[in-house]
Amino acid sequence: MEQGAEVLLKPLSECQIAIVGIGLMGGSLAGALQGACHQVVGVDRDEVAIRVAQDRGYIQWGTTSLADGVREADVVVLATPVRAIIELLREIGAYLKPGALLMDLGSTKAHILKAMAALPPDVEPLGGHPMCGKEVSGIKAADPTLFQGRTFILSPLERTSSQALALGRALARGVGAQPLVVSGHRQDFLVATLSHLPYLLACALVSTADATTSADPFAWQIVAGGFRDTSRVAGSDVTMMVDILMTNREEVVKAARVCQTKLEQLVSLVEAGDEDGLREVLSYIRETRREMYP
Amino acid sequence: MEQGAEVLLKPLSECQIAIVGIGLMGGSLAGALQGACHQVVGVDRDEVAIRVAQDRGYIQWGTTSLADGVREADVVVLATPVRAIIELLREIGAYLKPGALLMDLGSTKAHILKAMAALPPDVEPLGGHPMCGKEVSGIKAADPTLFQGRTFILSPLERTSSQALALGRALARGVGAQPLVVSGHRQDFLVATLSHLPYLLACALVSTADATTSADPFAWQIVAGGFRDTSRVAGSDVTMMVDILMTNREEVVKAARVCQTKLEQLVSLVEAGDEDGLREVLSYIRETRREMYP
Repeated sequence: MEQGAEVLLKPLSECQIAIVGIGLMGGSLAGALQGACHQVVGVDRDEVAIRVAQDRGYIQWGTTSLADGVREADVVVLATPVRAIIELLREIGAYLKPGALLMDLGSTKAHILKAMAALPPDVEPLGGHPMCGKEVSGIKAADPTLFQGRTFILSPLERTSSQALALGRALARGVGAQPLVVSGHRQDFLVATLSHLPYLLACALVSTADATTSADPFAWQIVAGGFRDTSRVAGSDVTMMVDILMTNREEVVKAARVCQTKLEQLVSLVEAGDEDGLREVLSYIRETRREMYP
Repeated sequence: MEQGAEVLLKPLSECQIAIVGIGLMGGSLAGALQGACHQVVGVDRDEVAIRVAQDRGYIQWGTTSLADGVREADVVVLATPVRAIIELLREIGAYLKPGALLMDLGSTKAHILKAMAALPPDVEPLGGHPMCGKEVSGIKAADPTLFQGRTFILSPLERTSSQALALGRALARGVGAQPLVVSGHRQDFLVATLSHLPYLLACALVSTADATTSADPFAWQIVAGGFRDTSRVAGSDVTMMVDILMTNREEVVKAARVCQTKLEQLVSLVEAGDEDGLREVLSYIRETRREMYP
C-alpha cells in the first residue's frame, strides 16, 4: 500500500496507456484497448510501425522517444521480446510518472520480475502474459481480437498494490481476456511444457522433414493437416523465441527431458512391435487429450 | 492390359460403388460421391452406421453382408483400418464381379499392396490414400467436403490396367481431390515423416503435460493455441493408428530416430545457453516451414 495509498489509480476508462513495441502483440493490444481507455500512445523505434498503427486507428498518437511516450502515461505496457523488456526496465524508471502501472507482455517471468523489483519505489510493476500468439510477427499481423476469450496471466510482485493489480485485471478484461493471477515461478514452469516445448517439437518435426522427405518433390503435395498443425508454431518469430528459451532455460530443458523419455517409450514400442503396449499407451494419451479439450 | 482388354470399365457416372466400412473416411467418401456416380452402397457390420449414412443421404442402400454389398459393384472401396483391409482382401475376391475396381483408403501401403497382389486375376486392384483426416472417428463425424482440395494418393500394382487407374483418378477428382500416383514404398516413406511422426510427437507432448503440469489446476486455463495445435492429432482413433504404426514400423522408426536427434540438438543448444547456435538453427527451421506453407 506504500504507493497505492499516495496516488489513487484512475479507472481504466480514464487512463492514458503507452505501449512500447508496436508489433503483433503490442499493436493488437493497442487496437483492443480502443474504447476501453482514454487514449493509447504507441512507442516504437520503427516509424513505419507507428504510422501503420495510427492508420488502423490502434493508437491516438505515437513517438519513437521512450521518454516522451511514457511521461504522461497512467499505464505503460512493454510489448517487446523478453530481453528487450529487461533492457527497457533498466532505463524506463526515470521517465515514469509517480504511481504509474508498469506491465509487460513477456512470455517468461523470472528475469522480468527480477528487473521489475529494481524499479523506483513509486512505480507499480505487474508482470503480464496473455496466452495467445501467432506464427507471424509485426504490426501488419496485429489483430485486436487476439485476446478474446484467452487467459491473461498477471504476476504481481510483493510490492504491487491491490489497486495496481485491480487495474491490471481491468486491462485484461478490457481486451476481452480472462485475468488469472499466477506467480512468476509457477507460470514459467507451466509455459515450459504448454508453450515452449510445443515450439521445440514443431521445430524438430520441420527439421526432420527437411532432412528426410524434402528431397522428394511429392512431399509437399501429400503433406496433410497433421503435419501443418503439429509444425505451425515452428514459424514463430525467432528473436522472440530465442529470448523465451534463454530466459526459461531450466524449466524448458526439464520439460524437454521428460518429453524425450516419453517419445523414446513410444518409438521403442513401435520398434518392438509391441502392439498391446502401444494400444494401451495411445488409448490413455487419447483420453488425456480429450479431457484437455472436451 | 490382361483384364482391362476383356472388361471395359464404365465411366464413374455409371458406376455402382460399394464402400466397406462406413466410418469417418468411408462415410465422407460415400457422401462426396453422391451425384458423381450411379449409386453408393454402404457395407458395415454396424447397422446403426448404415442407418445414419442412409438418413444423411450418403448411400442409396446398405447391408451388413459383404458378399451382398459388393456383388454388383463396379468399384469397391475398403475404408476400414489397415489390418481390417488386409483381412477383407483375403475374403473379398470371391464376391467381386469380373473387372471390378478394388480400392482402399488405408494410410500405409506395403502390406495392403502385397495382399492385393493375391486377388483373383479378373479383379483390378488399386491402392488409395486420401491425405486428410480428423481426430474424431465414426460416421457421425463424416463430412463430404473432407477431400476437397486434398491430395488423393493412388498406388497401382504392376497388374493394374490403365483403365482402372483412370477410373481411380476419376473417383479422386469426383470427390474434389487431386489424384497423385505414388508407388507404395515411396508413399510409406513419405507419410512416415509427414503423417505418422507428427502423431507420435503429439502423443509425446500430451504425455509430458500429463506427467508435469496436469497436477496444476491452472494448467488448462493457460494452455494456448500452440499446445492445442501441436497435440491435435494425439486425439486420432487408436485402432487406426496402431494399425498404421504396426504396418509402417520400419519407416516410422527411421523417421522418429532422425527426429530424436534433431530434438536433442535443439535441447542441447538451450541447455548450453548457446544463443548464436540456437538462433541460427531456429532461423533456418522457420525459413524451411515458410517454404512449406508460403
